[in-house]
Amino acid sequence: LKNGPTIKDIEIAAESLTGYAVKTPVLESDKVNALLNCRVLLKAENLQRTGSFKFRGAFNMISNLINLQKNKGVVAFSSGNHAQGVAAASRILNIKSTIVMPTDAPQIKINNTRNDGANIVFYNRADANRVKIAEKIIKKTGATLVPPYDAPEIIAGQGTLGLEFIDQVKNRKTKLDYLLGPCSGGGLIAGNAIAFKERSPETLIYCVEPEGYDDTALSLKAGKRKSIKTNINSFCDALLVEIPGKLTFKTNKQLLAGGLVVSQRETANAIQVAFEEYKVVLEPGGAVALAAILSKKISLKGKVIGIICSGGNIDGSTFRDILDGKYSY
Amino acid sequence: LKNGPTIKDIEIAAESLTGYAVKTPVLESDKVNALLNCRVLLKAENLQRTGSFKFRGAFNMISNLINLQKNKGVVAFSSGNHAQGVAAASRILNIKSTIVMPTDAPQIKINNTRNDGANIVFYNRADANRVKIAEKIIKKTGATLVPPYDAPEIIAGQGTLGLEFIDQVKNRKTKLDYLLGPCSGGGLIAGNAIAFKERSPETLIYCVEPEGYDDTALSLKAGKRKSIKTNINSFCDALLVEIPGKLTFKTNKQLLAGGLVVSQRETANAIQVAFEEYKVVLEPGGAVALAAILSKKISLKGKVIGIICSGGNIDGSTFRDILDGKYSY
Repeated sequence: LKNGPTIKDIEIAAESLTGYAVKTPVLESDKVNALLNCRVLLKAENLQRTGSFKFRGAFNMISNLINLQKNKGVVAFSSGNHAQGVAAASRILNIKSTIVMPTDAPQIKINNTRNDGANIVFYNRADANRVKIAEKIIKKTGATLVPPYDAPEIIAGQGTLGLEFIDQVKNRKTKLDYLLGPCSGGGLIAGNAIAFKERSPETLIYCVEPEGYDDTALSLKAGKRKSIKTNINSFCDALLVEIPGKLTFKTNKQLLAGGLVVSQRETANAIQVAFEEYKVVLEPGGAVALAAILSKKISLKGKVIGIICSGGNIDGSTFRDILDGKYSY
Repeated sequence: LKNGPTIKDIEIAAESLTGYAVKTPVLESDKVNALLNCRVLLKAENLQRTGSFKFRGAFNMISNLINLQKNKGVVAFSSGNHAQGVAAASRILNIKSTIVMPTDAPQIKINNTRNDGANIVFYNRADANRVKIAEKIIKKTGATLVPPYDAPEIIAGQGTLGLEFIDQVKNRKTKLDYLLGPCSGGGLIAGNAIAFKERSPETLIYCVEPEGYDDTALSLKAGKRKSIKTNINSFCDALLVEIPGKLTFKTNKQLLAGGLVVSQRETANAIQVAFEEYKVVLEPGGAVALAAILSKKISLKGKVIGIICSGGNIDGSTFRDILDGKYSY
């Protein structure tokens, strides 16, 4: 697995996840399709166990640890979705988990991580280096790090979403012209790109990032990993990385058609549309692919477009503000 | 079909609906299961086309009209979900539809009904008799009435939800001890009761109504149709009838184990739990079965409980108020 997973690794991951991960549904809205003059197939991964796709990669990696490792527990750093994925997978597999989380993570993500029995170590996003904190814990306990994206087992786990989606699209007797998915470190879109490359090679794949955090879009243009320095405030707490993963970018550079960028206003609007038309709850980071479609970042007419809505862990107060139009400026 | 539909009618309805109705997913939350010490299987019918189960019955009835009837169009009266079901089914089948709606129906339901090409005739809930208004239109145009619940074709259509649910439960290698579903005129729960009676006879079935509108619960106790007179304000706009349907009650009297009643506070709490734990949007009328479970109206311990969450058409302003705790008194 040194050079990233293959389709075979994703298939094996799908077997590991059977009975544990939810086969999330594909949703459609007559109104959105008519409005955009295309067919949008929404993969509702917010309905995944723990409310985001992160459970797939975490469970795949942790369930494949050897017993010696399992006994010493796992460590992860995460603003919340990966935290919940690791905590839930660990609970199910009866393994001790420690999660390094920023103090400003959404309360719902902190609560759920704690609820799944994880030991949470907080850090201040501005001051501390979360990687160093994790390393210290590992040195002390011998626990295994479960990285948020840059590991073949994680990428393979996230890719199981793609295998499912391809089957669900086939059952509808159609093919995707485009696939759009959110991008932080790039594990989700890399895993999906590998699955689609093999099973639906005609599909063009785009990653979507929030304004100010478009490191993958910039890196794709430059042909090499570029980091961003930004002081933009973004409510897309799940997508705030400054540089693409090494392993994920290696894949994404080869397989993606490009990177799209959406504004906070466009993302808030997508959350509102998901509420009204699809009847599902999306968090900001989970809504960027829908935002890209609704704001027509690519040519849509007559196309069949798959979008990954990756998570739904949003505080009630933020959701209320969005419904109130606070982000509609 | 004079005495209500049979399982065979429901099976035929399921065939009619194939390719048109969504096979809505079953959702589960580890946290809710742990909290209630039971297994809750949530049938997310809010993800149905038009955002509620009403599409099933409406499409089943309208698609089976003879051409002479189809040419003259259809009429329905509804506060909104049946309206949308009839409007969408008519649009798909290329039939003219006229809907009699109260002026105080949620804006989202009015907009969606109009969007599906229906001609809307408004009436004031306090003053006018919606049945008389519909009769007048029928006399003038020769259109066919699509009743909200008291017709075998409608009940059979709603029963297709039950067939699906039973299959989905079987795929999880379990059986339902209880099935709970919302009740207005009683079509949804009657159709489901017929399906379960035949295919899952060990399941006890309860209907759930909002406080002040518990006509079916009272009628079940009395063994005959009882009407209620109430001036209670309820945000369960989809469940405000004063007497059970004739045909539906005939079935429900035979097949239901009883009727449960939930308060507005309990319903608002269920909407919040659906938001946080299941990541779906429920309208008040669609959340009463979840409310009954969360407030432990029946003994839950160790049971497997199916709940029908029947719709998700709620205005953003109402949803925001619920997240804000306006109904938590």
